[in-house]
This record gives sequence, structure tokens and C-alpha cells, in this order.
Amino acid sequence: MGCGSAVLAGAHVGFLGIAFAFGLSVLVMCYAIGHISGCHLNPAITISMLSTGKITGKDAGAYIVAQVLGAIIASALLLFIAQGKADYSLAANGLGANGVEDGSPDHYSLVSGLVAEIVLTALFLVVVHGSTSKNNANTKFAGISIGLCLTLIHIVGIPVTGVSVNPARSIGPALFVGGHAISQLWVFIVGPIVGGLIGGGIWKLYDRN
Amino acid sequence: MGCGSAVLAGAHVGFLGIAFAFGLSVLVMCYAIGHISGCHLNPAITISMLSTGKITGKDAGAYIVAQVLGAIIASALLLFIAQGKADYSLAANGLGANGVEDGSPDHYSLVSGLVAEIVLTALFLVVVHGSTSKNNANTKFAGISIGLCLTLIHIVGIPVTGVSVNPARSIGPALFVGGHAISQLWVFIVGPIVGGLIGGGIWKLYDRN
Amino acid sequence: MGCGSAVLAGAHVGFLGIAFAFGLSVLVMCYAIGHISGCHLNPAITISMLSTGKITGKDAGAYIVAQVLGAIIASALLLFIAQGKADYSLAANGLGANGVEDGSPDHYSLVSGLVAEIVLTALFLVVVHGSTSKNNANTKFAGISIGLCLTLIHIVGIPVTGVSVNPARSIGPALFVGGHAISQLWVFIVGPIVGGLIGGGIWKLYDRN
Amino acid sequence: MGCGSAVLAGAHVGFLGIAFAFGLSVLVMCYAIGHISGCHLNPAITISMLSTGKITGKDAGAYIVAQVLGAIIASALLLFIAQGKADYSLAANGLGANGVEDGSPDHYSLVSGLVAEIVLTALFLVVVHGSTSKNNANTKFAGISIGLCLTLIHIVGIPVTGVSVNPARSIGPALFVGGHAISQLWVFIVGPIVGGLIGGGIWKLYDRN
Repeated sequence: MGCGSAVLAGAHVGFLGIAFAFGLSVLVMCYAIGHISGCHLNPAITISMLSTGKITGKDAGAYIVAQVLGAIIASALLLFIAQGKADYSLAANGLGANGVEDGSPDHYSLVSGLVAEIVLTALFLVVVHGSTSKNNANTKFAGISIGLCLTLIHIVGIPVTGVSVNPARSIGPALFVGGHAISQLWVFIVGPIVGGLIGGGIWKLYDRN
Repeated sequence: MGCGSAVLAGAHVGFLGIAFAFGLSVLVMCYAIGHISGCHLNPAITISMLSTGKITGKDAGAYIVAQVLGAIIASALLLFIAQGKADYSLAANGLGANGVEDGSPDHYSLVSGLVAEIVLTALFLVVVHGSTSKNNANTKFAGISIGLCLTLIHIVGIPVTGVSVNPARSIGPALFVGGHAISQLWVFIVGPIVGGLIGGGIWKLYDRN
Repeated sequence: MGCGSAVLAGAHVGFLGIAFAFGLSVLVMCYAIGHISGCHLNPAITISMLSTGKITGKDAGAYIVAQVLGAIIASALLLFIAQGKADYSLAANGLGANGVEDGSPDHYSLVSGLVAEIVLTALFLVVVHGSTSKNNANTKFAGISIGLCLTLIHIVGIPVTGVSVNPARSIGPALFVGGHAISQLWVFIVGPIVGGLIGGGIWKLYDRN
Repeated sequence: MGCGSAVLAGAHVGFLGIAFAFGLSVLVMCYAIGHISGCHLNPAITISMLSTGKITGKDAGAYIVAQVLGAIIASALLLFIAQGKADYSLAANGLGANGVEDGSPDHYSLVSGLVAEIVLTALFLVVVHGSTSKNNANTKFAGISIGLCLTLIHIVGIPVTGVSVNPARSIGPALFVGGHAISQLWVFIVGPIVGGLIGGGIWKLYDRN
């Protein structure tokens, strides 16, 4: 839905609309499937949960496979709908000047993009871990805080990299876009995973169980 | 109120404002009348509830009649207010290039429009069923997740079909607009109902009672 | 704060930003002072509460005096801050073509404006009464639903009348603007009060205690 | 994140997007770290809490040092990322005509700016104290009301001063921007602290423990 808003409606709703679409997607799914699976949807979250002992390695592996498969299927479906109009992109993440429709809207460098992905994902995982902590009496609000945190991250970061903070979100469109989306894909896998591990570590420092 | 935002304020608030209007309409009514009727407001929801055994056929029929009647009355009222300025549309749904003010803003084809309505309504009903599930400890937040899901759906889908995902929302304006709004109306009745049944089926797969 | 957003920031944030400002003002005050007074802030709410037997006549009178005094003081404070730049309006409500900065942005007629104020305030009071009903198990969310209902109403109605739905909100700026803001002020006193009484009546029909 | 949205994305998301970024930053951190520290993040809040006897002087001092240090580190990090594109500001607060990118977008005078900072921070602290009051049964919603209050304040006030209402938020960028950002910095330290004390006083008048 986040990529869908960029592809189908980006020219109408702007970066603020896209930011709300990404965040509201997570917010609504947290309340729709959170009671079943915890609603990870994101390998960076699952790996950070693994590093803090909240999920087993076996479950984490299954979750990540499902996340990436889901992203690929969703990208194919989006491609099908988008072909109903003349021109379209697929909202792949990217860096530098080579990505006009799929890439870094304001042509940020590799270093800025990588640092941004690490910092934004670290913040995201602090909010994910903190909002769902056993020590937190307000965990019912976690769907709101985590979803709106993703909106916040997109408001800030879309001009830099289009915002990944989620390797699955980057892998899906990249497979169909190819070119720079594939060659730069490592940034959007490594950055979010590193950021997610840092975020989990920061959370462990302040929120002892 | 959703159609009202498009007709009276669309030029001022853009598609993002219209998307918030549709979603907030549902959010506020969930907390205002949810304790009385469950706040369906949408035949696609009622039929999906019927298919999952949550409502009797008799109640479902009465709900759907009330939903369509309410939409027609609201469209008439909106027409009355809108006539206070020089030109106006009525926010009917549509496809292709024949609908400029009432129709598909970005001229999507029939196939893209129908697939979009099915996919978006299926997602909507996953959120509706999941957020109100007996197994879900956070059902008090259902009004927020369902309402903001409708905002999300409109952010993504307005350029494609104007977004129905609700046959009553399409029937009301179509009766006053006529022409293509009537001849294409079946898309916005069949699409949401099929999508709603699929969404209910997906929910049943993952959320066993 | 709602009028402040229109006066100080309207050119930057648009009607959608103004709509959020009006609604968030009510949302935040509901959680800040709701436990003390119920957070009416609006004579149309207080009179509708009086008509449904939820407040005594003596308390209602005191509330209304406080609401109008507060609006006048806030308008004076806003006038003081706004004078720090070259030109400014005061966000008075109005109708027809005589109000450019203070009035009906899209030049709606008296009849359309009056009907809009009645319909929108009736909807508002249905949400106010329903969200705070003794029969409602989710009244903790009333601040969210009532605040975001006011945002919804402003998304739809700003082009018509600038949106009052609150006589105090109209009286404050009108006293400093004068002219048409005073001569048309009756519309924004009568319309919201009539609409509020209708909304209370509708609520009583469906939500028996 | 608030300053980050202005620096990296301001041209894309507008003042409304920046307003949501500032508010959502606080909303999400309230649910992420509120159970550990209360999530002050703002010397004006901490000093107002001190004046109402809710925090010890020792804790308040440590909080304020941490708030200012955090703001300086965040500003340095933001400067690093922003250098990845050609031109950038750092979203310092300011007044008058000397600040184009860092300052008062609509060139407000010192008096208007100081009054605005005092009034807006007083409102903010009424909401902070009221939403977290021992007499309030809905304190779980405080993160939503306080965060969205900051959004509201930014919708109204960005054109006037860029909005501080938080001395730490002003000190961080000012140290890197220098010039008028340093010479006018006292306004954004004194204004919020005075406003915060007034807001705490107003709250004490209406919400007796």
C-alpha cells in the first residue's frame, strides 16, 4: 500500500500522503493481525527481535521468507494495476542522480543515504521495542505509535532514499525495476538491518527487564 | 461526508484531504453508533459479515436497504448544498476517459479499476474482521484502524476509480449523475462485494475461532 | 488555535491544515480538561446537552458566557500577534461574495450556508452524544472521535462558510471584523444551535437510555 | 526528526508535514520511553514540572542537560546527512527579516514572536499537565494528546518563529548556524520557559489535587 500510494497517487498526494500511506498500512495491520503474529512485516524488525531474544531463529527465518515473498507478490500486483495508465514507476529505493522516478528524489549521496537508513531504522526499532515492552503499561497503543513512527520516518526521509527501513519493501520493487535498483539494493538491506540491531541495543540499555 | 469533501472542497484539500474525509467519517461514526449497530455503513461489509456467519440474513437485508437509502438521501442533500455555487460534480465513481469530474482521475482501464476495487476491498475486510475479532484484545481500537484503513485505501486508489469499496457510496451519486456513472455502476457493486468475500475468507484462514 | 491557523498559517498549510488545527484543538483539550468540565467549548454543544437533560440550565448559562468570553479574548490575542505582519484577516465566518478573506471562500449563498451549518452541526452532535453515551463502552476514545469529527467537518465545509458549527467561534472574530461579519452573524448562531438540537434529537432516537 | 523534516523534506511536505513530524516525534517517543522517564524532551516541560512539584531539582537538572546534549548531537547528525545535497538550512528559530531559511518565514516582529512563544507554550503545558493529571482517568491517551498538541502548535506558529516552545530544540541548530540564531536565541529560551510556567499555573488553578 505504501509503494502503491507512491506509484498510483504520488503526483496527487505528495510526499506527505505517501508518508501517511506507509504508516497507516502498519497501523491498521497491527490491529488486524497483531494478535496472531505480532505484525512484523519487516526483516529488520524480525532480526532485531531475534537479537533481543524475543523470537526463535526458526520462526524468524519463516517470517523473513514470508515478508520477502509477500513484498514480491504485492509488487507484481501493483505492476499489474499500474499498467492501466501510460507511464509509471515502481517506487524502488535508490541513491544519487541515476534514479529519477525510482530512487533518491533529491539525489543524495551513498554515504548520506546509508547513514539515514541506519539512523531512521534505529529510531524505528527503539519505538517498536519500547512501545511493546513488558514494562510498558500502554502496549495497546503500540499499533498507533509504531505506525505513526513509520509515517514520521517517511516525512523526514523520502527525499533522501525514498525510505526503506525495511529490506522486504526494497527487494520487491527492485526485482521488477532492475538496474540501479538491484545494484544499490545492498544499501537497503544492510542499512535497515544494522540500524535495527542498533535500535534494539539502545532499547536494551534503557529498558531493563 | 467523503463525497461532500470531494464535491465541495476537493479543489482546496486535494486527494489527501478527501482521503482523510472518507476515513474520518467511518472513524467517528464507529465511536458514535458502533455500540448500537456495529457501524457497517457498507453493503460489502455486511455481505462479508453474512458470509462469515456474524449477522443473520434478515438483519443483513435490512442493513443494506438502510445503507443504500442513506446514501441516496445524503447525495440529494449534497446536491442541494452544492448548487449554491456555479459548477459542481457529485463524486461518482468511474473508469476510462469519459469521466473527468465524476470518474477515474487518471483514466484507468476497466480491468485495472476492477482489480483495484477487489484488492482494496479485500484488504479493507481483512482489517475489519481482524480488528473486531473475538481473539483480539484490542477491539476498542477497531474504529481507529478501520477508519484509517479507509483513508489509506483512498490515498492509494482515488486516482484509479475515485474509490468505491462500498456499493452504497457508488449508487447514491450515480442515480443523480446518470450516464457512465450508471453504465459502469456494476463495477462498483461487483468489485467491492467480491473483494469483501475474499477478505473475509483470508481472515478466516488466519484467525480461527 | 483553529482561527489562529487560518490567520497566521492559512497560506502555508491550506484548508486541510486549518481543518486539522480546529479538530486537534478540541482533541487535545478533551484530554486536558475533559475530566474537569466535559470540555464543551461550544454553545451549540451546551444547548444540545441542555435539551437532552445532561446539564442544568444554570450550568449551561455559565458555560456559554465562558465560551463567548474565551472566544473574544482569544480573538484579541490573535489580533495582537497577527499585527506583527503586514496584512491579515481574522477568519470570521461569512457568506456570498462580500467576504474575501473573512467569509465564504467559494461564495456560497445564504441558503446553502445555513443548510450546511445545520447539517454539519447535527452530525457533530450525533458524534458528541454517541461517543459519550452511557451505553457506549468506548467513551475513553470520545476525545479522538469528537476532535477528528471537527476536522472532518472543516475539510468538507470551509469552502462554504469557513465553518462555524460553534457560535462562540463566530462571535469572537466578528466583533473585531465588523461589517458583514456582524450582519451575517445570526446565521452562525442560529444554524449551529438548530443543528445541535436536531443532532441531539437524532441521537435520542437511536440510543435509548 | 522535527528539524530533520524541515531541513530534508520541507520543500516537499510543506509546513503541514513539518507540523506532523514535530508532533509525531513526541507522540511515538511518549509510548516508547514514557514508561521510563515520562518523556519530557523539553526544558520548558521539565521546569514547569519542577514548579508544580512533580520532579526534584536534581532530576530536573539532569534532564535538562540530557535534553540539550541530545539536541546538539541530533543537530550534528542532521548536518552530516544534509551535506549530502547542494544547499541546506538547519531549521533554526528566528525573527524579523534577517532569517530566510533559518528564522521567521513571514518576518514577524520580536514582540509578536515572543508573545506567540509564550502563548503557545502555555497552551502546551496546560495540555501536558491536564492530560497526565492524577485526576484524569484517560492518562493512557496523554501521548496522543501531547504529541498532536505539538502538531497543532506548529500548524499555527511555524510562520511566526518556526516554533520553538522548547529551548533544546532551538539551542541545537543555533550552535551550528550562528549569527542571528545565536543573538535571538534568548527569545526561544525565555519565551518557552515563561509560557511553561504560566501553563503550569493555569493548570493548577483548575485541576486541584
